[in-house]
Amino acid sequence: MNANEKTYILSGSSASKLGVLDLIIGCLYKHECYAYEIHTFDDDDVERFFFRVEFRYIGAGELAEESLRSQFGDRAEAFDAVWDLRDSSTPDKVVILVSKYDHCLQDILHRHSIGALNIEIPAIISNHPDLKRLAEWYNIPYYHLPITAETKPQQEAAIWDIIQKVDADLVVLARYMQVLSDDMCKKLHGRAINIHHSLLPGFKGAKPYHQAYEKGVKLVGATAHYVSKDLDEGPIITQGVEPVDHTYTPDRLVAKGRDTERLALAKAIKMHVERRCFLNGNKTIVFPGH
Amino acid sequence: MNANEKTYILSGSSASKLGVLDLIIGCLYKHECYAYEIHTFDDDDVERFFFRVEFRYIGAGELAEESLRSQFGDRAEAFDAVWDLRDSSTPDKVVILVSKYDHCLQDILHRHSIGALNIEIPAIISNHPDLKRLAEWYNIPYYHLPITAETKPQQEAAIWDIIQKVDADLVVLARYMQVLSDDMCKKLHGRAINIHHSLLPGFKGAKPYHQAYEKGVKLVGATAHYVSKDLDEGPIITQGVEPVDHTYTPDRLVAKGRDTERLALAKAIKMHVERRCFLNGNKTIVFPGH
Amino acid sequence: MNANEKTYILSGSSASKLGVLDLIIGCLYKHECYAYEIHTFDDDDVERFFFRVEFRYIGAGELAEESLRSQFGDRAEAFDAVWDLRDSSTPDKVVILVSKYDHCLQDILHRHSIGALNIEIPAIISNHPDLKRLAEWYNIPYYHLPITAETKPQQEAAIWDIIQKVDADLVVLARYMQVLSDDMCKKLHGRAINIHHSLLPGFKGAKPYHQAYEKGVKLVGATAHYVSKDLDEGPIITQGVEPVDHTYTPDRLVAKGRDTERLALAKAIKMHVERRCFLNGNKTIVFPGH
Amino acid sequence: MNANEKTYILSGSSASKLGVLDLIIGCLYKHECYAYEIHTFDDDDVERFFFRVEFRYIGAGELAEESLRSQFGDRAEAFDAVWDLRDSSTPDKVVILVSKYDHCLQDILHRHSIGALNIEIPAIISNHPDLKRLAEWYNIPYYHLPITAETKPQQEAAIWDIIQKVDADLVVLARYMQVLSDDMCKKLHGRAINIHHSLLPGFKGAKPYHQAYEKGVKLVGATAHYVSKDLDEGPIITQGVEPVDHTYTPDRLVAKGRDTERLALAKAIKMHVERRCFLNGNKTIVFPGH
Repeated sequence: MNANEKTYILSGSSASKLGVLDLIIGCLYKHECYAYEIHTFDDDDVERFFFRVEFRYIGAGELAEESLRSQFGDRAEAFDAVWDLRDSSTPDKVVILVSKYDHCLQDILHRHSIGALNIEIPAIISNHPDLKRLAEWYNIPYYHLPITAETKPQQEAAIWDIIQKVDADLVVLARYMQVLSDDMCKKLHGRAINIHHSLLPGFKGAKPYHQAYEKGVKLVGATAHYVSKDLDEGPIITQGVEPVDHTYTPDRLVAKGRDTERLALAKAIKMHVERRCFLNGNKTIVFPGH
Repeated sequence: MNANEKTYILSGSSASKLGVLDLIIGCLYKHECYAYEIHTFDDDDVERFFFRVEFRYIGAGELAEESLRSQFGDRAEAFDAVWDLRDSSTPDKVVILVSKYDHCLQDILHRHSIGALNIEIPAIISNHPDLKRLAEWYNIPYYHLPITAETKPQQEAAIWDIIQKVDADLVVLARYMQVLSDDMCKKLHGRAINIHHSLLPGFKGAKPYHQAYEKGVKLVGATAHYVSKDLDEGPIITQGVEPVDHTYTPDRLVAKGRDTERLALAKAIKMHVERRCFLNGNKTIVFPGH
Repeated sequence: MNANEKTYILSGSSASKLGVLDLIIGCLYKHECYAYEIHTFDDDDVERFFFRVEFRYIGAGELAEESLRSQFGDRAEAFDAVWDLRDSSTPDKVVILVSKYDHCLQDILHRHSIGALNIEIPAIISNHPDLKRLAEWYNIPYYHLPITAETKPQQEAAIWDIIQKVDADLVVLARYMQVLSDDMCKKLHGRAINIHHSLLPGFKGAKPYHQAYEKGVKLVGATAHYVSKDLDEGPIITQGVEPVDHTYTPDRLVAKGRDTERLALAKAIKMHVERRCFLNGNKTIVFPGH
Repeated sequence: MNANEKTYILSGSSASKLGVLDLIIGCLYKHECYAYEIHTFDDDDVERFFFRVEFRYIGAGELAEESLRSQFGDRAEAFDAVWDLRDSSTPDKVVILVSKYDHCLQDILHRHSIGALNIEIPAIISNHPDLKRLAEWYNIPYYHLPITAETKPQQEAAIWDIIQKVDADLVVLARYMQVLSDDMCKKLHGRAINIHHSLLPGFKGAKPYHQAYEKGVKLVGATAHYVSKDLDEGPIITQGVEPVDHTYTPDRLVAKGRDTERLALAKAIKMHVERRCFLNGNKTIVFPGH
């Protein structure tokens, strides 16, 4: 591929019916779009067909994007299709929520700074002031919004205002340590990712590494998942795991888990923003990526 | 090490008190025993000290084993020690319980046949006749003991008779698919290993791969653990894990899991028979091995 | 999917040109074939497009397979396409070559016996008699063809006769321990898989575990690759790896490696027979599978 | 363990002779030192016995450290022992060398900042100015020492001056991208760790990810090793590995490798400063740690 050529991603899902794929590929062909990477999945349980097509325009001038959208869109309705067409180079706008632990935030900011994550970060929001200096070093606006049991609704409203204002595509809870309200979960459906510090569904709720210690497990892990109103029950995107043994005290499990957490979360964000990740009821489809 | 030299393992636990290690090493020194591999662990929670010492006798003639036993044993009492001294070459006698699935049994028998597990297998017991031919190929007595809800006590009694008769050191439930009675669990305390086809405590009980499918996890695993009267709650010895994705149907998870199960179980057996594995309440200590 | 429905795989490669995908999907559509799993890869270096499409016929009666073949084939020529269409249920005929080590053979035969590998095994060939009893247990013809420096050409000719006679689709060197002649390698191009007991290109040639011991590596692995005339240089299909430490003597590395070898080889066979694996110069493309 | 109690590490090696262990344990016992974690290894090839004992003083007042040193030291000579006794809480002084890539440096600095690595970092040295701002953020002196073919000796002399001045215990080449002179390697023998971005001995020298791409390997890794005068041949401490496939271009391999590199390097540093790591000719012994 010529590195200067624009690339696009057409992704979505439809009813599991003959013809939808012919429609996708046919529209691309007619618009002189060369599809070089295709992944599909057909879920028999729910009779939905999931697709992700990466392509580049190889004709003269510019891709007639609107024509492609309307031609595909008009006929896609018959297949009950939900779809998204985007220029691959456009970064998603990601708002990050944190508390005091900095390992996941550090990791995301570093990846962002070296171009390993195609995102913009218009805001970092925290209920603590601790990570302000870090945000500033990366020139990212930091919003300190303290929270108490009484002020929770107002604080969430303030968070929501920022999300709205910056027009966020994705919200990442990078060890935020606060439970979002049902209403907030609903508003962020399919576009909020949390990292939980255990191999779900093994150890839900608080202090999972302490739970793991008590249980004497020989593997500990982390789970990145879409946020849902049922705590630690949202659709799983990625999971990481590391071997441990009897010498791991809770503190050592916490330390060990940091790497697993940040890798699982970074992978989940990457898969999401590259449109490799699809919600499918309480599960996800994640097409292969790097 | 001269391959012909006899090696021994002294393993056990004691109160966490100064002097026990000096006692162990001192006794070995006086008996001209060269300790070449030592691992210890001190559990602060329960104030017990766990040790495993591999050594060889380097003096003239034979090791005065009885003298070593009595000298060590007499003084070890003061440290509330539980200990075991054995010739490394002596194989444990292992009785294997199976149902119809053969992958774990195949694996154990193959390892045994090529000398990768230092065990004897005096009996394979099953509630089904299916694996008789396999047992015979390896020249191992196969006991077909069918079970029904009504005959469960008698069947277990028959199993127990065999275990007694062959003087089994260890009982391995290699996908046996039957729940042992509380009484049987008690009698086999610390010397029965089960393989559960999930990453405990994630998916207890029946059909864990179906549970994993419903939950949409991205990792599936297996857990080898000591049998306890609380089903799938026994002390964990080893756990294995493999990545999966949305394309794994329950059948494919079952297929994927077979390798994880057999590897986790084989490792657990090896650690146990090499005296690397110690019960510690509802947890285990597993010292490094191969 | 209805389990009784026939499924097919259309796989191959073509020039990286606009239109080939439209051709594939269009032909399938016209023949009422529902493509439920698609993977593609475009190699910029060599300008080849690789594709694998799994589909089922959903029309009335039977798929007009010949019509599909001719419609697709005629137009595929313009894209310099190499392709294969097959009924997914048809097993490949696999001839296995072994020496004395049985772990890889045991593994393949067991997977075959439980239906985990969709293959037939019309012949096992060995330069030693040792594994005859195992082959017989599985009711597979065993050919003992001893080899010496002098008789090598004749022995290879005898092997080739068997491969021809049984019309083998694939030849698997399951720790065969003999180097095939250049001529034999050429004849088996793209349809012979070897398992090498190291992480290539790390330790080529003989006794790789001893090499690994001398070097003090902390990971050992195995590599399944297509056979080429340059020893241990063939296109890599799968690689497995396990952590080791300073306590691993060469013997222990050998023992550890057995599991890695058999898993890497079994995976490579599965990917090959499911048409997920493509030769691409001295490399391979392996589309996701289970 | 009472968190306030001082802990110590006695580590080293001796001839493989009866009596050395009795000496170690006996001296500790007499000085009222409770050894709670012991690991030993006996290398038959070179007839050396390696040991690491963690203990705490449980008597009244303070440990008579000098008495322990002299009693042990005097008698240890007869066993040709090389040993080190240290207070566990004393941090090693680590000088870090970098070029322009920041991922390993970021990782080490972050771990240091949260107390995950018990080290001091008195100096960061680079042949480029790029990472100065990062060093300053962590309040660590940054020395920019440019290098050309002509100025290499002077630059190395300047590096050596800094190492001497800060009395460095360890030098870490965190993707330094420069080859040290033989003389420098000699001076840093056993106390300089490099991270190489491949699974040694697979791809030595420059651009290992490009080599891996050309070879089509299915796993890429990183190797942390002690620096020796033979480039990329030093004793291996840790290795990490990640699966890749045909879609990984050299750029994507580089990106994938970053995580493997930083984890392997951080682990190696931790093992070294906790005295778990021993040089043994061209290999290492690494006792279990977290």
